[in-house]
Formats: sequence, C-alpha cells, structure tokens
Amino acid sequence: MPLLLNCDLGESFGSWKMGLDEEVFPHIDQANIACGFHGGDPVVMMKTLGLAKKFGVMVGAHPAYPDLVGFGRRSMNCSEAEIIGFMLYQMSAMDGMAKSQGLTMEYVKPHGALYNDMMAKADVRGAIMKAVAQFHRPVKLMLQATQDAAQHEQEAANAGVELLFEAFADRCYDDDGKLLARSKPGAVHTKEKMLAQVKQLNEQGTITSVSGHTLNIKADSLCVHGDNLEGVQAIAEIRQLIQQGA
Amino acid sequence: MPLLLNCDLGESFGSWKMGLDEEVFPHIDQANIACGFHGGDPVVMMKTLGLAKKFGVMVGAHPAYPDLVGFGRRSMNCSEAEIIGFMLYQMSAMDGMAKSQGLTMEYVKPHGALYNDMMAKADVRGAIMKAVAQFHRPVKLMLQATQDAAQHEQEAANAGVELLFEAFADRCYDDDGKLLARSKPGAVHTKEKMLAQVKQLNEQGTITSVSGHTLNIKADSLCVHGDNLEGVQAIAEIRQLIQQGA
Amino acid sequence: MPLLLNCDLGESFGSWKMGLDEEVFPHIDQANIACGFHGGDPVVMMKTLGLAKKFGVMVGAHPAYPDLVGFGRRSMNCSEAEIIGFMLYQMSAMDGMAKSQGLTMEYVKPHGALYNDMMAKADVRGAIMKAVAQFHRPVKLMLQATQDAAQHEQEAANAGVELLFEAFADRCYDDDGKLLARSKPGAVHTKEKMLAQVKQLNEQGTITSVSGHTLNIKADSLCVHGDNLEGVQAIAEIRQLIQQGA
Amino acid sequence: MPLLLNCDLGESFGSWKMGLDEEVFPHIDQANIACGFHGGDPVVMMKTLGLAKKFGVMVGAHPAYPDLVGFGRRSMNCSEAEIIGFMLYQMSAMDGMAKSQGLTMEYVKPHGALYNDMMAKADVRGAIMKAVAQFHRPVKLMLQATQDAAQHEQEAANAGVELLFEAFADRCYDDDGKLLARSKPGAVHTKEKMLAQVKQLNEQGTITSVSGHTLNIKADSLCVHGDNLEGVQAIAEIRQLIQQGA
Repeated sequence: MPLLLNCDLGESFGSWKMGLDEEVFPHIDQANIACGFHGGDPVVMMKTLGLAKKFGVMVGAHPAYPDLVGFGRRSMNCSEAEIIGFMLYQMSAMDGMAKSQGLTMEYVKPHGALYNDMMAKADVRGAIMKAVAQFHRPVKLMLQATQDAAQHEQEAANAGVELLFEAFADRCYDDDGKLLARSKPGAVHTKEKMLAQVKQLNEQGTITSVSGHTLNIKADSLCVHGDNLEGVQAIAEIRQLIQQGA
Repeated sequence: MPLLLNCDLGESFGSWKMGLDEEVFPHIDQANIACGFHGGDPVVMMKTLGLAKKFGVMVGAHPAYPDLVGFGRRSMNCSEAEIIGFMLYQMSAMDGMAKSQGLTMEYVKPHGALYNDMMAKADVRGAIMKAVAQFHRPVKLMLQATQDAAQHEQEAANAGVELLFEAFADRCYDDDGKLLARSKPGAVHTKEKMLAQVKQLNEQGTITSVSGHTLNIKADSLCVHGDNLEGVQAIAEIRQLIQQGA
Repeated sequence: MPLLLNCDLGESFGSWKMGLDEEVFPHIDQANIACGFHGGDPVVMMKTLGLAKKFGVMVGAHPAYPDLVGFGRRSMNCSEAEIIGFMLYQMSAMDGMAKSQGLTMEYVKPHGALYNDMMAKADVRGAIMKAVAQFHRPVKLMLQATQDAAQHEQEAANAGVELLFEAFADRCYDDDGKLLARSKPGAVHTKEKMLAQVKQLNEQGTITSVSGHTLNIKADSLCVHGDNLEGVQAIAEIRQLIQQGA
Repeated sequence: MPLLLNCDLGESFGSWKMGLDEEVFPHIDQANIACGFHGGDPVVMMKTLGLAKKFGVMVGAHPAYPDLVGFGRRSMNCSEAEIIGFMLYQMSAMDGMAKSQGLTMEYVKPHGALYNDMMAKADVRGAIMKAVAQFHRPVKLMLQATQDAAQHEQEAANAGVELLFEAFADRCYDDDGKLLARSKPGAVHTKEKMLAQVKQLNEQGTITSVSGHTLNIKADSLCVHGDNLEGVQAIAEIRQLIQQGA
C-alpha cells in the first residue's frame, strides 16, 4: 500500500480564515477536519465536508481540548471522564454532519496538545482509546508511528480499537524515533530533505534519524501541511513522488 | 394515545447545577436534552443520557442559539446557513452520544429564543425544517400546537419532516391559541388551574382560553418543568391525572 | 479641524489573523480596538495597544455583542442591564490595559450589530449611553453622523455623555443621510467616488446623496478599512487628501 | 492586626447560580470576585460589586485560566505572554467596573488551577508577578502563606509587587506547611478542629501540622467558603472568634 497523505483542514472559525483548504483538497487522501473546539464551526464544517465530498477525500474527525483562543495547543489537565466526553461529542458532531452529506467519518486524529499528550501520557492515551471504543461504531484512531508502535497496538487491541499510524514528512526524527524538538537545529527539513525522507519512507519503510541511524517506521499515512502556497506545492510534489514509487 | 410528558433536562454546565434531573426522570416520557450551546456539556450530556437509559425515557435533542451566558434566551439574527449548521451540529452530537449508550434520539425540540423564533418567523422555521430534513435519518421536530398547526403540517410535509406537537400545562392561552405573555395577569396557572387544563386537554383535546373560548388543540405531548421540588411534585400529579384519563 | 481617520483594529483572535494592522497604523488617527467579545484576545490587545503607542494613535474601545463565532455581526436581543454590563466590562478591560502601557482610552465605538442597533433602536442607544455615563471617567461615544445628529446630541446631553460623529468614506448615502444598503447598486463607492466624497466632506461639510441631494454632515472622524492592501493604499490617499485640504 | 476573612464570590454565570453571596457578604472582609473567565459575567460582576459596596467589603480580582466549562480548575500550559495578557485583562475589567461603582480593587488573588500553579511553579508565579507589576497602579497579590514566604517576598520585591498572605481555616497542613492533599484522611477539618486552628493562628501565629509539629504561619487573611448554609454559619463563627481574640 502506498502512503496516504493526511492534512489538518477546516480550521477556519467564523470570520477568520485559516489554511488553503480548496488548494489542498485535490492533493490529499485524508482530511482531519476540525470539530469546533480548537477551530471549525458548524458552517465551516459543512463547507469542509462539501469539499471532501467533491474531491473524494476520506473524512476524519480532528477533536481537540476545549481551547479556542489557544487553538488547542495548550495542554489541559483533564479527567478521563472529561476526555471521553469531549471526544465523543466532537466525533459525534462530525459523524452526523458527514453522514448528512452522504459521507462516512472513517477515523479520528486528536489535535495539537491532545495529540502530544496522547503520545506522551498513557492515561490520556487510555482515555482517548476508551472514547473511540465507546463510540457507537468502529472508527480508527490515528497516532504517530514511533518505536512504541507495538505497545500502542497492544493497548489498542485491549481497548478494542483499530489504529492508523502516521509519519511526518518535514520533521527530522531523533534516534528514539520521536520528532526532534522544534527548538533544535535541523528540526524542520528543507524541501530537498523532506522529499528524500518521503521517498525513503515510502520505498523502504525507514527514516534516517538526526544522527544517521536507520529507524523502521511502519506508517499508513503521512502528515502534510497546507498553510501557505509553498506548503501546497510541497504536498503536490510529495504526492507525485509517492505515486511514482507505488 | 394519552399525552406524553416532555421536560427540558441536562441543562447543568460544568460546575453549575440546574434542574432536578434525577427527580424528574421517573415521571416523564420525553427528555429534551441540552446539546452544549445554551447548557449541557459533554460530561453532563453523558450523565443525562445515562439517566434517560435508566428510566426508559425517550431522548430528544434540545438545540439552541450559540449563547451560553444568555442561556439561549436571546433572539439572534442568524442566517439560514448558520441555523442549519448549528442545528445539524447539535443534533449530530446528541445522536452519536445517545447511540454510544445504546439509545436513539427520536426527535428535536429547539430551545428558548430559537423555539420562539421558530413559532413566530417563517424563515427561522423554514431553516429549522431544512436542517431536520438534511439530517441523515428521520427524526421528528417538536413545536407548539397552535391554531396554525395545519399550516405547519403543510410546511413540514413540503420539507419532508414529521412533526410532534406540544401543549403547555401551566400557561394560560390567549384567544388566538398562543401563550398569554408572562407580563399579563394570570399568564401562569395556579396548580389547580393547571391540573384542570391538563385534564381537559387530555380528555377532550381542548383548552379554555383566557376569555373563556374553547380552543381545539391537538397535542402529542405536554411540556412540564422540573426546576424545583414543587415543579417535580406537579409533574407527578400531572402524570397520574393523564394515566387515570387514559 | 481636519477630519480624523478611524479604523477597526486588533480583530485577530488567537491563531487567526485579521487585518493589516501594522500597515494601517501609520496612516490613521484613531484605533477602534476589539475588546475580546467579537475579536481580539488579551495578547492581541496588548500587541495592538503597543502599535497604537508606537505610532501615536488615539485609542478607542470597540465593544461588541458577546458573539465570537458571528464576529459581533448578528443582532442579539439583550436587556438594558446586559448591554450596560458588557459595555462596562469591555471598556474597563481596554482602559486598564491601555493605561498599563501609558495610554489613554479616549472614546468608545460600538462594533457591528451593536453599532447598527445603536443607530436604529432608541432603547439600545439609551443603554449604551447609560453605560458610558456610568463609566468612572468621561470617555466620548462615537456614532454615525446622520440627520438625527441633533437628537442624538440631546439624548447624550441628557445622559451626561459627549459624542464624536463619524462619516463613511466608501459608502454611498441615501437621501435620508443613512448608508445605502449594501444590496443596492452603487452602495460601495469606486475609489474615485470615495476620494471625491472625502474631499467634499472635508472641505464643505457635505455629502452628495445617491439621488444628487446635498446633505449637511458634521463629522469629526472618517471610518476607513484596512482589510487588504488596496484598503491600506486607499487610507494613505485619503489621509493625503485631508492633509492637503486642511 | 486581626486576621481578615476572604471568600470567593460572584461565581454565578448567566442563568446558573453558585454560592450564597448575599448570606456571606455580611461576615467577610475581602471578596475575591470572579472576572468572567471561570465564572462571573458582566451582569453578575455588577451585582457582586454592588453587594461589596453595600456591606463595605474590600474588593479583589479573582482571575483564572480561560476555562469556563472546567471552572478554572484544570491547569493549562500557558506562555508568559498569555498569563500576563489574561491577568491584565481580568484585573482591568474588575478595576474599571469597581471604580464605576465608586469602589477600589485593592488586590488580586488567582483562582483554582492558576493559584495552584502559582504556588507550585516559579515561571507561572513570575508571570503573575510581572502582570501585577505591569498593571497601571499598585495592587497587592494574595498568595498562600507557606514556609517559602520569605522567598516569595524576595521575588515580589524584585518584581515591584506587594504581597498579601492567606491561610486556610478548614484544611489540615502537612509538615512542610503545605495543604494536606484532599485524598488524605483528615485533610479537611471538622468544625471543631477548624475553629481551634483559627484561634491558634489568630492568637499565636502558628498552625499545628498533621503530625503535631508547630508551624509559624504569617497570614494577613483567612480563606473561607460560603457554598452552603453550613459554610456560612462557620464563617460567622470564625469571625466571632477572631473578633474576640483581637
């Protein structure tokens, strides 16, 4: 299976625009659509789902901590019940709005600080898996492909949840298979290095870490960003590369 | 069919409590559950749905204008797209959370100013009907039983929506079949008059207006209130009256 | 006195950017700064006040209905106490944050639907004037210069409030001295007509209405818009025109 | 100086009521009034300030993380600029609304998770002190009297901020002078122990810890709670005790 491309979309809010959604949609496979807690509002969600339908892109929910002004980027110390509650609420809202346009929400990928906490904290990850398991029909949970993938698979199996793994195109990996912190030099790849990383991951299933180690990374999807025209252009090139490799 | 009893529930928010939900649930048939825009939050919604399940009460969505501090009681001048968007969002959130507990959301009843605008303004009512029609499966729309019921039925048929009609137990009706404004003397019935109105409505399908006219009111359900212990006691008495009459 | 130029600024929110504030500030005299209810957040407010300080621009509060997703553009049916409350809250927040940077908030101009309701509804206007009068020190209230200016002056005198009047550069006026509805042809001027209207207003104190009538408009300030680069360029030209005329 | 009594007040929101403010006000010296981020709204703030005026109670701002549904009880990972921004915003809003009723906001006491983070994390405490120092006039910062009081005094002196220290009437202290975690047995005192702790603190300036050590606690104020009638009664008894001791 060639790598799919996933992108965060539908993050405008009210009168505020964010992202080049219309330019990005033609080039991707999976749309992580904001559900109203960090971005997105009902009208934006309807429009974004309409674009997903037009371009035949798979729909995923992109739930977040309830922190609009912080764009869901600030970790919040929530209880398990709170996490399960806001996950189910956002997944349900997206699911029903998608169905109302004849679409199916197939997966869920937490956003921002909730994603980071899911990767770093077992209790947050456990609460998220419980929420996905409690949802009334099976949807997959997308998380980062790391060296802990086997453990995450085990946790998911115990919870009764199926996983999708994603890798990052433009970020340098450290030797532990985590993303190099943005504060470190070389944390974000040049375009050339990004394309090389994508090619290697797609063809060999490996990534070369910051210090030259070869990491096995089993990814279903690649996270790309469409914030500006350069980003959109990069997505188009990544997709071409993947299609050639397939 | 005897009259069903419906009540607004799940209107607590975060640390703030509202309503005697646990006391009310044993006595009613239909729970209009807040969806997070005027009251309710994901954790409150889960708890309220759990009570509905425990007591075998039918679940309805109770969507509102996005006005938390105003409790959805202030009319907002929204576009059709905005109304359709927030209706679908709130209905979807409730539907998915209900399904995740093995429950079915069977109807939707707009809250507060949105309900009043629905009854008073054809464009708001039209937008609400469009939203219900666009929802991915049939759910009924509950509105007030008035002398315009035939017209509302026609509008709903055109939109492809099925209606439920409700009457009010404790409110005096004017000669046009509308609720007497709360500012008018006698607008809210004494308990004795309330019980008499319920009995008449249940057995004869009529209500006696403020000036003594007999109005035909075809209602499926009766709206009751459980804000305090007196209200809960009144609900219990109303239910007994209806069951005796049935 | 030459016409001053006022512009709505500080309307970004969290991660969402709006307006070309840095480009606009060099060309204007008065900044109507969002107070967090329709746009603006505390960090944005601090930055915007910093720009006002840097460019020596007079600071005004730009309070709105509490409607973030609607950008304060939807009329809300608020009580007098609610209007007084949210006016005082937003004015106070801006006042204290301005003072903390050594600036003085000198006036208040309601935003969006609150502005429109202030011009159209005597009770909303009355509530706004009461709020400004209750504020702990005198600040001026900016409203639209219309044919009702004398009446508004009288209302303000009764309330103990001082007024500022503004006119619009790019909008065509109807024969009653109101703005021609945007839905009407010619409602928004071409740049040429806009500059002619500004010149006439600045030099003669009049505006030519849509059907050719000459209206006396006594304005202290001119409302301009800096949403895009064309708008910023227009502001620069308007300012040059006014400085030449002075 | 006898101990003052401070209490969190004005925490109702919109239609939701919280706390017995009217019953509490006659018995306290300092009101920590919610500023709209965890509770309180402009109308509630005006009413609460009116009560403070009526009963001659000193006004303090009670700012919080921007987390209404979580009642400000969930730690949020905010930047220094964000903390300074929301502190200045909330302090300014309270200050201006207080002044508009002829009152003076004399101090600020962070709420909930922000208070806990202030006590536990030097960077949060530093950001809060910067915010108080940047406010346009001196107001005192209230924090918990602990064994780190001398260090906090030094930090405050460096920042140019004056402190108030508070102790807790109903909570058991551990041997380090911190509050015993609520999960531990005996964490919350019986009424008898509470009154004994107040008496000892007021007369001797000490508290007896959970394991019997005597801790020197230099407190200006005592935090009391008025959530229910028992709490109000306890406040009245505490006040009587302090007045007798003075």
